Amino acid sequence: MSGIYLDNNATTEILPEVRQAMLPFLESAFGNPNSIYELGVQARAAIERSRHQVAQALGVGASEITFTGSGTEADNQALLGVAFANLTGRKKIVISALEHSAVKETAKWLGKFGFSTVEVPFVAEQGRVSLAPFSQAIDEETLLVSVMAAHNETGILFPLPEIAQHCKKVGALLHSDAIQAFGKIAFSPEQIGLDMVSISAHKCHGPKGVGALWVRRGLKLEALVHGGPQENQRRAGTENVAGIVGFGAAAALANPEKYKTVSDLRDRFEAELLARFGKRVMINFQDFARLPQTSSVQFVGMDGNILLIKLDRAGVFASSGSACHSRSLSVSKSLLAMGLTEKEARGSVRFSLSPANSTGDIDQTLQILVRLLT
Amino acid sequence: MSGIYLDNNATTEILPEVRQAMLPFLESAFGNPNSIYELGVQARAAIERSRHQVAQALGVGASEITFTGSGTEADNQALLGVAFANLTGRKKIVISALEHSAVKETAKWLGKFGFSTVEVPFVAEQGRVSLAPFSQAIDEETLLVSVMAAHNETGILFPLPEIAQHCKKVGALLHSDAIQAFGKIAFSPEQIGLDMVSISAHKCHGPKGVGALWVRRGLKLEALVHGGPQENQRRAGTENVAGIVGFGAAAALANPEKYKTVSDLRDRFEAELLARFGKRVMINFQDFARLPQTSSVQFVGMDGNILLIKLDRAGVFASSGSACHSRSLSVSKSLLAMGLTEKEARGSVRFSLSPANSTGDIDQTLQILVRLLT
Repeated sequence: MSGIYLDNNATTEILPEVRQAMLPFLESAFGNPNSIYELGVQARAAIERSRHQVAQALGVGASEITFTGSGTEADNQALLGVAFANLTGRKKIVISALEHSAVKETAKWLGKFGFSTVEVPFVAEQGRVSLAPFSQAIDEETLLVSVMAAHNETGILFPLPEIAQHCKKVGALLHSDAIQAFGKIAFSPEQIGLDMVSISAHKCHGPKGVGALWVRRGLKLEALVHGGPQENQRRAGTENVAGIVGFGAAAALANPEKYKTVSDLRDRFEAELLARFGKRVMINFQDFARLPQTSSVQFVGMDGNILLIKLDRAGVFASSGSACHSRSLSVSKSLLAMGLTEKEARGSVRFSLSPANSTGDIDQTLQILVRLLT
Repeated sequence: MSGIYLDNNATTEILPEVRQAMLPFLESAFGNPNSIYELGVQARAAIERSRHQVAQALGVGASEITFTGSGTEADNQALLGVAFANLTGRKKIVISALEHSAVKETAKWLGKFGFSTVEVPFVAEQGRVSLAPFSQAIDEETLLVSVMAAHNETGILFPLPEIAQHCKKVGALLHSDAIQAFGKIAFSPEQIGLDMVSISAHKCHGPKGVGALWVRRGLKLEALVHGGPQENQRRAGTENVAGIVGFGAAAALANPEKYKTVSDLRDRFEAELLARFGKRVMINFQDFARLPQTSSVQFVGMDGNILLIKLDRAGVFASSGSACHSRSLSVSKSLLAMGLTEKEARGSVRFSLSPANSTGDIDQTLQILVRLLT
């Protein structure tokens, strides 16, 4: 592509090695993995190899991985799967106010079946997300808690280990949408004490159309898609073999170590912005522990969407809020929930980097911003 | 691939034109279709072009097409979507006894929510599926009826127009799993009088991991996957752009006209089998109107699975029953439901052809069968 791509939290470019791994399964290795002859066995083996690769990247058992059609589907599978397996019993679901709509809308939809959802407000406390509102909300009525590992717009991290401890105390299950965090920071579901984790291939240089849900061994949940024994009875339907193989290859290449450079680049970008524009920019939640690739920049008093269009014309691709809602051009609900005023939220632009970005990309972007803003 | 592939009802090879259409979206055109800059707009345009291609192949409006992660998901979306949109009201679901497990298991699962499912037994009547048991079962208590367009194992066609007429009379909705029929026979959902139709890319020389549900305009159904505005609020999640583009390309190339030759080849195969083996073979439901590509052959007194293994070693790939259950090596429940004895069902092998098969493939297969059986 021509231009500078700084929207890696929206989606990432497929790595050449990932594409190479996929191609045979779009060509001669086209067997149905459920067929018993060689062509089927080959596809089955490829899926199971990918399952091991994804499991290894998460540090979990391969049999605990269910491939899905997207990260959103993984989130749905987690929430609906647990809720439908527990139609009698606890009816309270607790989520953070910053969850992706894949979690928010799904939890809300469960209201149809008598579940109620409590959104835990974002409270900042000495440069981190405060645990207190979570401890207050999560009680012995709570069936399931869903808290993202890291926020897609600002990159801030949630105190998952502490939330997990509290969940254990009251007997609530804990799901985490780690779609933005996977492959970018060290992340061990078992060490944290999670029960379910959603991840997605296209956020870590794999293909679109494939996600995965990790489910702690022994946890019972209903399938979302029924019929057929695929994915250990958890997700029926002929498997997206090429997509799954791509996810496996991307997971095998995913390495938080690579993101140390990305983090340096991001920090340099932010420092230069502050140096060049002074009080005309603010870095949202810069003092928080954040994902290495994410920078939420507030251009004080400006309209972020207009700036984005100008950046686009100049060949720099970034976004305001999450891509899933960017076509609506509305102001980021997440930033408002984090205490920004509408004006502050409207002026905010998300830059998200990847190991493919160079110092040159950042310097050019800075130059373009100087040109656009002066 | 080396060998003779006669298992096209399990899955099909991706056509070179389809793969070519997909590749850019696995390479530089990697944008998130929900992003507002050029890279996103390009992906969005590609999805909408595919939606038109699929709609055109079905003779329906593009806005009525929802892309899914598989044909199975489309079936689930249809049944669960209607049921969850009608939690108060009619509670009866009617399906044919030969439905794919994507329909059967989903309908059964809805029992959790107070729905009851009636399976209409297969009754043959002068070389066609009898309408009477359907008319009996579908009444004014019936919310939804699901009947496949054609049976995946034997290829027999169901009397959908007549069933549709009856459904209209009693105010029941009619869904059809047309996954095996799409692209192989002329099939017009609107002329037939259907309300929803499921199709799948990988059964018509497109990629695995993408299906579609046609929903008649105005019909309300709940989403299966929640969160995000994608697919007109019907299926949240970043779209499988390459997969959808592949489906569009495959749909544009799908042409029942091509299947006249396939039908001739299938008829020749069956005639030669009968000529060479006499009473040692039977063609199941040969007198029925069937899909052009499907032949269910009973090798009298033999074990079909053992024959399949021998065929596999000789380089001929076919199957017993549906691929989705072939790993279990159990006898086909469908064939039993169609009145075959367990022995007859166990001796049955499905050969399913495609336009890629040649007369040479058929002649070689016949020679191999002669060698294996004499």
